[in-house]
Amino acid sequence: MKLQNYVRGEWIEGSGPGDALVDPVTGEELARASTQGIDVAAALDFARSKGQDALGKLTYEQRAELLGKMAEVLAANRAEYFRISQLNSGATEADASFDVDGGVYTMKYYSKVGRSLGAGKRLKEGAQVPLSKTGVFAGQHFLMPVRGAAVFINAFNFPAWGFCEKAAAALLSGVPVVVKPATSTAWLTQKMVADIVDAGILPTGAISILCGSARELLDEVREEDVISFTGSAQNAGRIRSHANVLKRSVRVNSEADSINSTLLGPDAAPGSDVFNLFVREVIREMTLKAGQKCTAIRRVLVPRSNFAAVSEAIAAKLGEVKVGNPRNKEVKMGPVVNKTQQASCFEGLKKLKEECSVVFGGSESFQPIDADPAKSAFVQPTLLACEDGASAKYVHDVEVFGPASTLVAYDDLNDAVDIARRGLGSLVASVFSSDPAFLRDLVLGIGDLHGRVMVVDPSVGKEHTGHGNVMPSCLHGGPGRAGGGEELAGLRALLFYHRRFVVQGPPSLLEALSQESVDASLLYA
Amino acid sequence: MKLQNYVRGEWIEGSGPGDALVDPVTGEELARASTQGIDVAAALDFARSKGQDALGKLTYEQRAELLGKMAEVLAANRAEYFRISQLNSGATEADASFDVDGGVYTMKYYSKVGRSLGAGKRLKEGAQVPLSKTGVFAGQHFLMPVRGAAVFINAFNFPAWGFCEKAAAALLSGVPVVVKPATSTAWLTQKMVADIVDAGILPTGAISILCGSARELLDEVREEDVISFTGSAQNAGRIRSHANVLKRSVRVNSEADSINSTLLGPDAAPGSDVFNLFVREVIREMTLKAGQKCTAIRRVLVPRSNFAAVSEAIAAKLGEVKVGNPRNKEVKMGPVVNKTQQASCFEGLKKLKEECSVVFGGSESFQPIDADPAKSAFVQPTLLACEDGASAKYVHDVEVFGPASTLVAYDDLNDAVDIARRGLGSLVASVFSSDPAFLRDLVLGIGDLHGRVMVVDPSVGKEHTGHGNVMPSCLHGGPGRAGGGEELAGLRALLFYHRRFVVQGPPSLLEALSQESVDASLLYA
Repeated sequence: MKLQNYVRGEWIEGSGPGDALVDPVTGEELARASTQGIDVAAALDFARSKGQDALGKLTYEQRAELLGKMAEVLAANRAEYFRISQLNSGATEADASFDVDGGVYTMKYYSKVGRSLGAGKRLKEGAQVPLSKTGVFAGQHFLMPVRGAAVFINAFNFPAWGFCEKAAAALLSGVPVVVKPATSTAWLTQKMVADIVDAGILPTGAISILCGSARELLDEVREEDVISFTGSAQNAGRIRSHANVLKRSVRVNSEADSINSTLLGPDAAPGSDVFNLFVREVIREMTLKAGQKCTAIRRVLVPRSNFAAVSEAIAAKLGEVKVGNPRNKEVKMGPVVNKTQQASCFEGLKKLKEECSVVFGGSESFQPIDADPAKSAFVQPTLLACEDGASAKYVHDVEVFGPASTLVAYDDLNDAVDIARRGLGSLVASVFSSDPAFLRDLVLGIGDLHGRVMVVDPSVGKEHTGHGNVMPSCLHGGPGRAGGGEELAGLRALLFYHRRFVVQGPPSLLEALSQESVDASLLYA
Repeated sequence: MKLQNYVRGEWIEGSGPGDALVDPVTGEELARASTQGIDVAAALDFARSKGQDALGKLTYEQRAELLGKMAEVLAANRAEYFRISQLNSGATEADASFDVDGGVYTMKYYSKVGRSLGAGKRLKEGAQVPLSKTGVFAGQHFLMPVRGAAVFINAFNFPAWGFCEKAAAALLSGVPVVVKPATSTAWLTQKMVADIVDAGILPTGAISILCGSARELLDEVREEDVISFTGSAQNAGRIRSHANVLKRSVRVNSEADSINSTLLGPDAAPGSDVFNLFVREVIREMTLKAGQKCTAIRRVLVPRSNFAAVSEAIAAKLGEVKVGNPRNKEVKMGPVVNKTQQASCFEGLKKLKEECSVVFGGSESFQPIDADPAKSAFVQPTLLACEDGASAKYVHDVEVFGPASTLVAYDDLNDAVDIARRGLGSLVASVFSSDPAFLRDLVLGIGDLHGRVMVVDPSVGKEHTGHGNVMPSCLHGGPGRAGGGEELAGLRALLFYHRRFVVQGPPSLLEALSQESVDASLLYA
């Protein structure tokens, strides 16, 4: 099977052999993807003209309805997406749900909140600014949808959610989508796009997909386009420093992996509710999707006094996790996505081991359930320990994008803040404690270098939404190492797909321009 | 005289010969600037630690008061700044006022609007987001001042205003400033900083200045810092693609020169008020600061039917402009900043002449009043004409950063929109017409590719604030060619110096964190 590309309102097969998509459990080839011979420039032009024209005629409310229909179609095909997730990503039921159900949930969320924007086609921001004493001349800020295409360069670990969360905000803004999923797991995204196209929900040009190499995509983007990238910091840098992207100041949002931390407060005694919630969350983050989440916990910050207790508790739980072929119902954790990623994990673990001791796992010859280690891409859940966080180097910098975390001992609040900040910008940190003053000081100490800080105390208990879960109503993204981007955060996500500008002129004109506008304060409500 | 650098709370002279600052009228050397031997890393560290600590203890309101005191000091030294402007920039009274008074006005504006933020130290954005059915877990978005330094890399044409407008927003946000003015006109910025330092207004570390080469400044910025750049698109690209800036995702705002257009509506008959207002504005934009404004009009879009009439009217007025030594009270237009800029203007004009005819000026051997052409850096006001805008290439791309504009004929609304968009992103466009429908369609046709659109009809008359004037209450910046940045726009300017993040946790904690916070909706009011 060769995955077809959907451009200019047509399904087109790329030429040449293309790249293989494999089953990470069996190593078998599932499909091939090629964009060779696809006219990327024409694809973008088609989106910018046909797609823009059609979407631009709709109001926010009408576009929100389209999202609702898309969510329905996706929900109806859930079983097939779970099947593809298992085949192409080695996903357990829980893994597939996290990606697929998460994507549909996000699409539904934007359909719902998008309706609140009503019948406008652009946003009006703030009141008129007086610019003349007699009142004949004033200013009015507007936010207008960008007139180009929304180009998504997505990561392999969320073929469903990554597509849905970005497409929802772009389409709601009236901006056509051109998605380039990571080749290794492009099948699921391609199937979703195909189902949406088949259902005839979106106007022609509103959606396109390229399966395979991005080819000249970056050479062809223009001032009017935006690029939303998810993936490695290295690739983010490549995109942002691309000559054409620089020359045209193409707007780029980038969400990169980060060295996220979770932290146990000094007050949380072993065996306490908070302690147990903390251990449970670390296990969940290490094993869900085999640790392949940009939000996953990489550093586990623990008070030195409880270092041994935490270490033992996590190791004991990790020992119970059944790892192997997700077709076996007992299995709780599957493989990483392919041999390349497995090798990258092994390489990262080698570096970490130079300065950390191994508490659990860490074996490259580990035997997964119902799978051949030679053909499959498993990584054993691995817990490392670092007693001297301040002098450690790799712990704060090397990301093992798999089921691995490192315990780091800290001495007091300031030390904890310093260690968390050593991540140099993260998507998320979480804190588990019953001490309100400690929680407050910690949040204020690290907030500016994080996109999200999750706090769990006994009053929250199990009702928190999870360290690694991205809620569409809350900001996702982070500074520095995390890429400096912003996604989701409710209707704030629309900001990326709009351009702010100000009109200075007679108040009558400003009012005329305001007529098809919606109040931008709704974005921040 | 060697301009000293102010870093780590001390005045330090750079070593070596440094670079010369010259009088563009006489060619005489005025001062030298050198950063050689300055420890830039230590300078930034000092700002991040001492400056941050001190500013962070103040509320927005208290910082607004500091801005007010700074404005007072600057206003008191106005005469000296005018003197330096004349010497180092060849500024007329009007030119000096535009830069100096504009800067003081902007500082005062931020002092005033900043007081409305009251006693908070950070911003709370929107209501709590429910995240659990029982209400024990919720989300709250905050905007926290960045914890680093605000690094300004500024342009030569606004040594006063460029410093003031950026410093106002940064300091109001609680972020220490490290300014690196363009070397050729660094004297004025340096004098302003010196006056502020001498007045003892700001806490130690809140302000630093480097006069001369930026040296390793870009190698030393961190995740917590922000860079605000004004200058050429080429330098903007260099900053954004710098390895350290990319690696750390350092936030960069860039405001670059653009090929701004002004447009006369088809309804404006020669001799009408709107026609005359249009001609007056073109003349003002061409000659004020000798055309050295990033917002200046580069393309003058005129209905083909009135092309000759506009051409004649502008040429006639240009003929009346006295160009020369600003020490002569009759002179209305001075030189460009130096011989390098003069050569760059001549080079640009040569390219434009390949596809344009010369309506007025354009002579390299032109004789300025009271100045020696061999030693001075004058450029004759030059009006070019391009009858075929659609096929023209340089007209939409080559910026002559001096007193030069090109008339471009257009046929109808769509043609006008297409031509304006050929600038590929501009800071500003202006439109002069009495036809509300035309004005509305034009604004909607070009708004997304502009930061600002100014509209003048007979009801506005002379009360508009000017095509090239940047009002602190309105957005300054533009997409694409204009750099993709955003400055000013009232309190929205503070967004660049804050980081958005979300805290998820028990509502009691979110409320505790909200206590020192101000409602972020004030930014958009």
